Amino acid sequence: MKTKRPLILVTNDDGITAPGIASLIEAVKSIGDVVVVAPDKPQSGMGHAITINATLRINKVNIYGVKEEYSCTGTPVDCVKIAINKILKRKPDLVVSGINHGSNMSINVIYSGTMSAAVEGAIESVPAIGFSLLNESIDADFSAAKKIVKTIVTQVLKNGLPKGVCLNVNIPKVKFEMLKGIKICRQAKANWIEELDERKDPSGKTYFWLTGRFDNYDKGKKDTDVWALENQYVSIVPTQFDMTAHDSIKVLEKWKF
Amino acid sequence: MKTKRPLILVTNDDGITAPGIASLIEAVKSIGDVVVVAPDKPQSGMGHAITINATLRINKVNIYGVKEEYSCTGTPVDCVKIAINKILKRKPDLVVSGINHGSNMSINVIYSGTMSAAVEGAIESVPAIGFSLLNESIDADFSAAKKIVKTIVTQVLKNGLPKGVCLNVNIPKVKFEMLKGIKICRQAKANWIEELDERKDPSGKTYFWLTGRFDNYDKGKKDTDVWALENQYVSIVPTQFDMTAHDSIKVLEKWKF
Repeated sequence: MKTKRPLILVTNDDGITAPGIASLIEAVKSIGDVVVVAPDKPQSGMGHAITINATLRINKVNIYGVKEEYSCTGTPVDCVKIAINKILKRKPDLVVSGINHGSNMSINVIYSGTMSAAVEGAIESVPAIGFSLLNESIDADFSAAKKIVKTIVTQVLKNGLPKGVCLNVNIPKVKFEMLKGIKICRQAKANWIEELDERKDPSGKTYFWLTGRFDNYDKGKKDTDVWALENQYVSIVPTQFDMTAHDSIKVLEKWKF
Repeated sequence: MKTKRPLILVTNDDGITAPGIASLIEAVKSIGDVVVVAPDKPQSGMGHAITINATLRINKVNIYGVKEEYSCTGTPVDCVKIAINKILKRKPDLVVSGINHGSNMSINVIYSGTMSAAVEGAIESVPAIGFSLLNESIDADFSAAKKIVKTIVTQVLKNGLPKGVCLNVNIPKVKFEMLKGIKICRQAKANWIEELDERKDPSGKTYFWLTGRFDNYDKGKKDTDVWALENQYVSIVPTQFDMTAHDSIKVLEKWKF
């Protein structure tokens, strides 16, 4: 058991003023010393983007009354990098990201700024968790999510995480009493079928909004995050940054170049 | 054997006017019908970012004299989505991305716009390859790289790729005659040790440039991409978008919630 209070880095992708990050801070501030470094504007869909062709700035703020708080002009991954390598005096014991307003289940993990911040924590060898609530509303009820955050954070601080692995936690949009439990899952195979919404601007030129329909290829598979969430379970997918398709190495080694 | 000419989608992250994409187009245009949809500006380090809080535009251009060419205001992943779901009349037989000016070996895969475009191809069930040359110069010599592109593209069109897998191809900065061969590898375990370059703007306010030093934790491991490239091999890493750490599921299932 650690005797000193754990140092917890909090970030998100909806921006430092989003209700989801306020709930996350509230959930973890009794557990450890909290430092917030979060984007100064919404950064949804930024994936694992980093800022290399432009400069970064950080601004000290005082919104939540925790140990230290900074807004950052960069992406969620930039926030983790600048926190760990510039702001914090020692490596944090935990990175938590979210609570995202909306799902990061299945293939969404790869587009998600929330989860990319957690993955960056894992790359930096810090236990990390991304939390998402399946409710995109600005007025979403985070009360059940806050209880889940406390439960999972406590377990991660106690047990640690396997090397190179962070957690993708999604929470269904139901009252706490309705939750059936917490289920360890794999990422469901799925895709977005894009529907590019075509419009004309006032001068008659065409532009598009990227939108689409989620298509689950793993329907009914009980070991997936999508199934868990559809059945009122909190889903946890252990998530890694080694993207090597190890099983395919032998297949490709047979090719004649 | 397909009798009709394959339809090849070309994109990159350095932007539609980069010498690397010109070389890639030159290498594949004798193999198939080429459609180019590439960013209108550099998008290095954009990872798997998509544009959901802003609009997208495409503009028809005629730079390379191939079947169709468009510049796009979005990220490399946006380019693949808009090409497959809006521009192309049928699914392409291949997505190629690059040739990137600079390495995408090891952990760089996760930050790379070049590779994220290839990964998006795999998500859309299209065989896809990202090519990168270990030379960041605008005047880089792509002649060896072009030969490698032809060889690998021919093999992929002939053999197909395992489901859910694309290829991350990196090419060392040596003359073609010096290349030792093509090696199938895993992504080396490594990280960037960030050094945030702190400066003052003319009004005295602090800003940062994100920079760093590449730290290879797999030094000397002959099955890694970094080793292959250091030893004058072209590296191919089969790369997947399933980020589930499958081996960790059983570990986490033992936790008591």
